[in-house]
Amino acid sequence: MDIKQYMEQLGQRARAASRAMARADSATRNRALLLIADAIVRDAALLRAANQRDLDAALAAGLAPALVDRLTLSDAAIATMVEGLRQIVALPDPVGEISGLKFRPSGIQVGQMRVPLGVIGIIYEARPNVTVDAAGLCIKSGNATILRGGSEAIHCNRALAAIVKEGLLAAGLPADAVQVVDTTDRAAVGALITMPQYVDVIVPRGGKGLIARLMEEATVPMIKHLDGICHVYIDAQADIEKAVAIAHNAKCQRYSPCNTMETLLVARAIAPRVLPALAKLYAASQVELRADPESHAILAGYPHLVAATEEDWGTEYLAAILSIKVVADIDEAMDHISTWSSKHTDAIVTENYSDAMRFLREVDSASVMVNASTRFADGFEYGLGAEIGISNDKLHARGPVGLEGLTSMKYVVFGHGEVRG
Amino acid sequence: MDIKQYMEQLGQRARAASRAMARADSATRNRALLLIADAIVRDAALLRAANQRDLDAALAAGLAPALVDRLTLSDAAIATMVEGLRQIVALPDPVGEISGLKFRPSGIQVGQMRVPLGVIGIIYEARPNVTVDAAGLCIKSGNATILRGGSEAIHCNRALAAIVKEGLLAAGLPADAVQVVDTTDRAAVGALITMPQYVDVIVPRGGKGLIARLMEEATVPMIKHLDGICHVYIDAQADIEKAVAIAHNAKCQRYSPCNTMETLLVARAIAPRVLPALAKLYAASQVELRADPESHAILAGYPHLVAATEEDWGTEYLAAILSIKVVADIDEAMDHISTWSSKHTDAIVTENYSDAMRFLREVDSASVMVNASTRFADGFEYGLGAEIGISNDKLHARGPVGLEGLTSMKYVVFGHGEVRG
Repeated sequence: MDIKQYMEQLGQRARAASRAMARADSATRNRALLLIADAIVRDAALLRAANQRDLDAALAAGLAPALVDRLTLSDAAIATMVEGLRQIVALPDPVGEISGLKFRPSGIQVGQMRVPLGVIGIIYEARPNVTVDAAGLCIKSGNATILRGGSEAIHCNRALAAIVKEGLLAAGLPADAVQVVDTTDRAAVGALITMPQYVDVIVPRGGKGLIARLMEEATVPMIKHLDGICHVYIDAQADIEKAVAIAHNAKCQRYSPCNTMETLLVARAIAPRVLPALAKLYAASQVELRADPESHAILAGYPHLVAATEEDWGTEYLAAILSIKVVADIDEAMDHISTWSSKHTDAIVTENYSDAMRFLREVDSASVMVNASTRFADGFEYGLGAEIGISNDKLHARGPVGLEGLTSMKYVVFGHGEVRG
Repeated sequence: MDIKQYMEQLGQRARAASRAMARADSATRNRALLLIADAIVRDAALLRAANQRDLDAALAAGLAPALVDRLTLSDAAIATMVEGLRQIVALPDPVGEISGLKFRPSGIQVGQMRVPLGVIGIIYEARPNVTVDAAGLCIKSGNATILRGGSEAIHCNRALAAIVKEGLLAAGLPADAVQVVDTTDRAAVGALITMPQYVDVIVPRGGKGLIARLMEEATVPMIKHLDGICHVYIDAQADIEKAVAIAHNAKCQRYSPCNTMETLLVARAIAPRVLPALAKLYAASQVELRADPESHAILAGYPHLVAATEEDWGTEYLAAILSIKVVADIDEAMDHISTWSSKHTDAIVTENYSDAMRFLREVDSASVMVNASTRFADGFEYGLGAEIGISNDKLHARGPVGLEGLTSMKYVVFGHGEVRG
């Protein structure tokens, strides 16, 4: 059987299973999640053995240490997976909520019901924990899912798939509700993203290169973001202490996440006071500062100071590097953001009410903040309880995507025999 | 200048205008709408003259009478356009609404703000009223728009575009917020749907052929539906009187809309009582009935009776034709709907509580109804106040799309200097 046929089979089975999942009540879906959590605890040794086979192959193939690290399923990682499943059980069921139910002059009553999306394809790299997290979120939200993990984790993913299927069946749900693609052939990804008849949405989790390539080829819609070029703008009327704490945290708390600040914009009136204070903190973390001429002059003597080029404004460093620009006012700041932001997360630091409101209203990004670190743009911090990813598309889900982002709304009409005149 | 360059210019101007529109307050946007309405009244004679040039060309080209009819801008059509604009003014502004604002343990306050989509491209046929309706909806929802109407209406659309621009400028808004594509070259459509850097969403209004073609080529997301294969299922426990009224109205009130019923499913237990009663009403409208063997036997003697083929279940007739099938129960009905429905609108007629709830929950369509005619699936009937189209996609807008469907949600965070630990 060729890959395309194999993937179509998975698709057909997922489509059939998605109807049963949409029908299943909350208690049944929660029972499956708890059974899976228990089985992971029971089979921990087996999972570690499967993971060891992946690790042996990875070491033999000379995989980079960072990738080997991600691939490793430690006891702590297993405990986190189990805890994650139990947290998902504790979250409210998003499915079936009816909102805005109103009687219309014709006599019909119209509202919107939250329903599962159907079949969700998830494409990710060699992190075995994603297999369980994603399966858990899809089961909870009443969806069927097809999981395509990195080929380096194939043994561990097979073992996890067996546990998930066992839990689904024991709860009375179809085993096909969660299917792991059991081939390392890359053509499987190409098939998965081009079968809209079986797959309702793709969630790609990976680097910019992977996502850009999928965007070229996919005919199935995606919940995704390409990159995170996030800005903090320190307004002329900012509180210096808040500004310094936020601009330091937004860059230095972690370098690699997509919600880390990449460009700092500072109002001319406050730059001579705020930049030297910030420079002390950045120097302690050896952050390289790529400065425009005006901030360069203020920062003279900073040990890792470089002149910014046009390219810097459009670069996501994901490293201890920050570009800095002095601007006249909020208008110049928002012009810069409008031109260079990847529309992921942008923040203003100000005590001025009108500037805060203008920034919230006018900056066209998935998350817009006042007086808080961009690092808060995250499903857990926003209270979504769980996160499948972050979207910077305007259609459908936008920003951190949790269980609700895996559902859609349909209109429901309650009539009493009304016909249209 | 070639078409691609021309369209890119429109796109750049629209993108710039969209920022001003997102900033503009409700009163300013409403003032523009009222000024446009007044100018249409003032220039009615001029508009009719421009329309006459289109009609002369259409008649010379031998355009079909139905198309000429749609192209005609009568005094009544002008009055309806003006009334439509004034109704849009009276609707609440969807932009800026903040929902779900909650404090989080970190101290930040997180909610979602409703914001315009940005730039909306609308592709439609030779109906000049759409130019004004669509411009009105986009202005009200704070978007910029690029309108590409049918080439047959070019003179009338140019005259309407001049009026719209005058109204925008007089209200203090950018004239580029509404741009009419001023060429009849078909390459303009191809350019419009493949410039995601300038256009956020396409709304295609036209037949299935147009939309299927756009789906092949578009790289910009679309708010669309392909067809409407809508079902009414008459349950064994239906009220006969309601069932007959609904199944008659759903087919016969109008034949061409997408929310008209194309297939009637009837439970075996009730078919011998309900079908003959319905046949009397269908006969009066000379509806051709394409029946499965079981309903064919019950309907024997009906003057326009034909044996249904497999193809009928997948056909949108948009005519006085109805396919009919007898099913065992709600499960067989929902299996049929799952296989054949275009997921636009499906209805159950029943007095049974559990069947009604199952149908609402399990049928995966944009509108699902109990005891009401499918013809109610419409923005005005649902109370949206205005309608830009109907979507049967699961992502973003689904079902009738009004002003809210032309907006997105972004997260807003109100902090007090919080940083992430």
